[in-house]
Amino acid sequence: MKNKILVAGGDLRQVFLAMSLSREYNTYIYGIDDEAYTENLKKDDGKDIYDAVILPIPVTNDGETLFTPFSEKKILLSEIAEKVKKGGIIFGGRFGSSEKMFKEKEIETIDYLSREELSVMNAVATAEGALGIAMEESPETIFGNKILITGFGRIAKTLAKILVSMGANVTVCARKKSDIAWAEIFGCKGSDFSLLDEKSDFKIIFNTVPTEIFTKERLSLLNPSAVIIDLASKPGGVDFSSASLMGIKTIWALSLPGKVAPVTSGEIIAKTIRNILTERGDMNV
Amino acid sequence: MKNKILVAGGDLRQVFLAMSLSREYNTYIYGIDDEAYTENLKKDDGKDIYDAVILPIPVTNDGETLFTPFSEKKILLSEIAEKVKKGGIIFGGRFGSSEKMFKEKEIETIDYLSREELSVMNAVATAEGALGIAMEESPETIFGNKILITGFGRIAKTLAKILVSMGANVTVCARKKSDIAWAEIFGCKGSDFSLLDEKSDFKIIFNTVPTEIFTKERLSLLNPSAVIIDLASKPGGVDFSSASLMGIKTIWALSLPGKVAPVTSGEIIAKTIRNILTERGDMNV
Amino acid sequence: MKNKILVAGGDLRQVFLAMSLSREYNTYIYGIDDEAYTENLKKDDGKDIYDAVILPIPVTNDGETLFTPFSEKKILLSEIAEKVKKGGIIFGGRFGSSEKMFKEKEIETIDYLSREELSVMNAVATAEGALGIAMEESPETIFGNKILITGFGRIAKTLAKILVSMGANVTVCARKKSDIAWAEIFGCKGSDFSLLDEKSDFKIIFNTVPTEIFTKERLSLLNPSAVIIDLASKPGGVDFSSASLMGIKTIWALSLPGKVAPVTSGEIIAKTIRNILTERGDMNV
Amino acid sequence: MKNKILVAGGDLRQVFLAMSLSREYNTYIYGIDDEAYTENLKKDDGKDIYDAVILPIPVTNDGETLFTPFSEKKILLSEIAEKVKKGGIIFGGRFGSSEKMFKEKEIETIDYLSREELSVMNAVATAEGALGIAMEESPETIFGNKILITGFGRIAKTLAKILVSMGANVTVCARKKSDIAWAEIFGCKGSDFSLLDEKSDFKIIFNTVPTEIFTKERLSLLNPSAVIIDLASKPGGVDFSSASLMGIKTIWALSLPGKVAPVTSGEIIAKTIRNILTERGDMNV
Repeated sequence: MKNKILVAGGDLRQVFLAMSLSREYNTYIYGIDDEAYTENLKKDDGKDIYDAVILPIPVTNDGETLFTPFSEKKILLSEIAEKVKKGGIIFGGRFGSSEKMFKEKEIETIDYLSREELSVMNAVATAEGALGIAMEESPETIFGNKILITGFGRIAKTLAKILVSMGANVTVCARKKSDIAWAEIFGCKGSDFSLLDEKSDFKIIFNTVPTEIFTKERLSLLNPSAVIIDLASKPGGVDFSSASLMGIKTIWALSLPGKVAPVTSGEIIAKTIRNILTERGDMNV
Repeated sequence: MKNKILVAGGDLRQVFLAMSLSREYNTYIYGIDDEAYTENLKKDDGKDIYDAVILPIPVTNDGETLFTPFSEKKILLSEIAEKVKKGGIIFGGRFGSSEKMFKEKEIETIDYLSREELSVMNAVATAEGALGIAMEESPETIFGNKILITGFGRIAKTLAKILVSMGANVTVCARKKSDIAWAEIFGCKGSDFSLLDEKSDFKIIFNTVPTEIFTKERLSLLNPSAVIIDLASKPGGVDFSSASLMGIKTIWALSLPGKVAPVTSGEIIAKTIRNILTERGDMNV
Repeated sequence: MKNKILVAGGDLRQVFLAMSLSREYNTYIYGIDDEAYTENLKKDDGKDIYDAVILPIPVTNDGETLFTPFSEKKILLSEIAEKVKKGGIIFGGRFGSSEKMFKEKEIETIDYLSREELSVMNAVATAEGALGIAMEESPETIFGNKILITGFGRIAKTLAKILVSMGANVTVCARKKSDIAWAEIFGCKGSDFSLLDEKSDFKIIFNTVPTEIFTKERLSLLNPSAVIIDLASKPGGVDFSSASLMGIKTIWALSLPGKVAPVTSGEIIAKTIRNILTERGDMNV
Repeated sequence: MKNKILVAGGDLRQVFLAMSLSREYNTYIYGIDDEAYTENLKKDDGKDIYDAVILPIPVTNDGETLFTPFSEKKILLSEIAEKVKKGGIIFGGRFGSSEKMFKEKEIETIDYLSREELSVMNAVATAEGALGIAMEESPETIFGNKILITGFGRIAKTLAKILVSMGANVTVCARKKSDIAWAEIFGCKGSDFSLLDEKSDFKIIFNTVPTEIFTKERLSLLNPSAVIIDLASKPGGVDFSSASLMGIKTIWALSLPGKVAPVTSGEIIAKTIRNILTERGDMNV
């Protein structure tokens, strides 16, 4: 017998996630009222009990109600808890304080955002989104452009790969000598962060380091017409107010995958959940 | 003595062209009144005579006055003719009927758009602009996306190279067997145009063939949620009204280089003019 | 009824060509006596008449007998002529004087080497073979190596694409401004041939220009430990005796596809012949 | 004052290492008697004392004498120990039992092979060497070839990047879901190891997993004409005797960097030593 799954709340990503899962699982939706997209999906009838429930990113903003941007209904998380069978799982992306509530009801919670493969797959969507912003902001082509990337984690690597193949002249700042070596293998110039303490003429700068590495002093050494696209999570990597005073355009681009590629993003979450279910042996969710 | 050059009319591209040429030539501008960009450029004083005058794309819309989107002044082409020395050259991008007028005044005209190297360099800007549109229109990443390119000329080749390196699954339709072989070397699947007579599920289609190859019949075989980005010059490659009736989104994207990358575009024209002047022996323009 | 085809003479390429064609056509071999490879292929019984006969590269060395490196038999071309039906075709790679003889017997001859798609597909095998030689000869990695390519035709383009993606630092010399622009799009530095008149420190040089561009004077400007891999057909692009006197290692690498990739090479010829037969309408060969 | 460094023993790599270091340090050689290469290097005069001594890979084969393939002299490691100043460092690649001896004499030893950046940089040379073997062994081009890579560490990643860019059809087997995701970003098909338990038709297989994953059973599922290139350190990843009995060609390719690219390899070690010296503050070695 196929697992019975409920996809509840969230935006377009949840819709595509539900479509993807419905090819294998007995899938229902709840709290997503966009008829244009959901006509082929089964709707929860209010009485069903599920093996697993999949909540959105974030699960909740207030700790009590489900995040439902595509529905006007107010859905309590406690109501969701009633819909999971004993021994079932609630998946979600950032539970916040709600995790405690579910745990108290003895429901297992799994945050799919903590899965490494999801982060890797999301890096592609983030890199493409960042590229899109750069192309939009720059009056020059990426080809031949002088670009800096700070940090060399998943997103930086994926972005570097794309930019280099488009013919950009890419420099990467990283702390670890081995990351510098990797950057060179990816076709970039590699450097440590002391590069930021010298005058430079990069036109596009992508930051992926979540610490304020672009201080006032370092900002003053940049080409004043540079654009900084900050991909780092809070607190970001730029002294935003100094940048603004100096007239350096800074774009803090968070949560790109859901914005630029909701279909792919939903499919990535679906794939990750499928991996988790397979690892645990489907039927015994 | 350095050549004395006038850059007259046009948009941002002419500004950057003038900046680029001013590094080598004694360069002036006329009919571009955007102070923000032109403060470091010398202005024509109304009495100067030039070795060469560079006109924009297009030179004129009405055959009588210069195309001056950045100026409210109305400048007659006959006035421009007075500014060139005897034996000088007027460069421009699409002269239209004005070519005859200049010729009658015994002024040599050169259309830089007819230079092969300009077309090649412009292909990059066009391909990047097309990619930008695709990323904007698609709710999925380019990575893993199923994409069709029709034709395999300069723009198609450059676009294919970028898309493949971004991990797209690219099919190219071309007529010549050798172009199909090239497409495969570029990492695409190659096919002849009979592919268009079968049902397909491409999500993004780039057309570069300037003949109506996407007829009503062929449009009906496409994935209805496909987006067609038509890069072909007039008359384009799509039966636009049928596409519209079928709900297939079609974007006819013309003149991308000037729109998405005016700086690069201006520099490309500057480079081409430099090539021409060098070939002729600078001083004897 | 399927076309009946004879593959006669030649080396391993002919064997793989026969294997490839036998999936579609009624295929026989003759004058290839390597049992290890040919056991699954039908042998000519001496009495059959064929719709088409496929001869090797070259067809003949002496104008009278078939080139049969894999057989000790001496096969006269006039004997081959007897095996083709009236109105049939003889395919071959470089007929030399034998073309006249077949024509006199009113047999159509087609030189598959003159087909553009074959040249394009062969460029890949040539480029890989050239890469193999370079890796063998160089005590340094291709990654980071300083490499020059002269000319920018099919082979040069394919080679440049591979070398750039392996992280080499590639410069291309070409005559046409548009080829220089293409070289830059491929990720190389582009230059005209005046570069050869300056001192340089390239470590690997691939020549594709079939004229002696590496004269004594130009050779003296190279890094003495450079290796020149000459891919140009006769007369080659290097003053070989001067190079030898100067101690510059020069490898004249001809006919690489058949040497480094006989299977692929045979399949490329098969694909080309299939294209020709299809274009003419199979049954009416 | 510049550090005084001795490069002792070893092969061509040590020569190029010495050349590279001599641009910055006061560098001498000892136990490398190849005049053709060493004429511009200073020789140890038997009385000098050094800040650091750099020994080869391996340091020794017998635990007592230095590995000196380029010299007929027998050099005792105890003699080397005398040449280092008090507080100096001996660098080497695999000390084996000799480490204990140096420690007893209170000499610090550093195995540069344990540095991550060296492993990353070496991965390029290994990947190129592996590619060279594959091209040599295969009668087909890499372009279009069906290739399997097992494992997805440094070498596998670098190799995958090259093969994909050459147009191969590459599948990667990895254990971690996130490595499978990375493999897909690199343009490969990703799979877990269960793929090895099915019949397959890969023509070239690169193994990087140092455990016998190619058991007799799995070997029997491969294409019998496949070539396995095993890049894994001891014990390798293949049941070599079963492979040999089945006629599956297996090449166990160890220590490729030193073999295929001694210059690059020497420079990589030099770069790593420079990194270490810089991190410690040069003068206080």
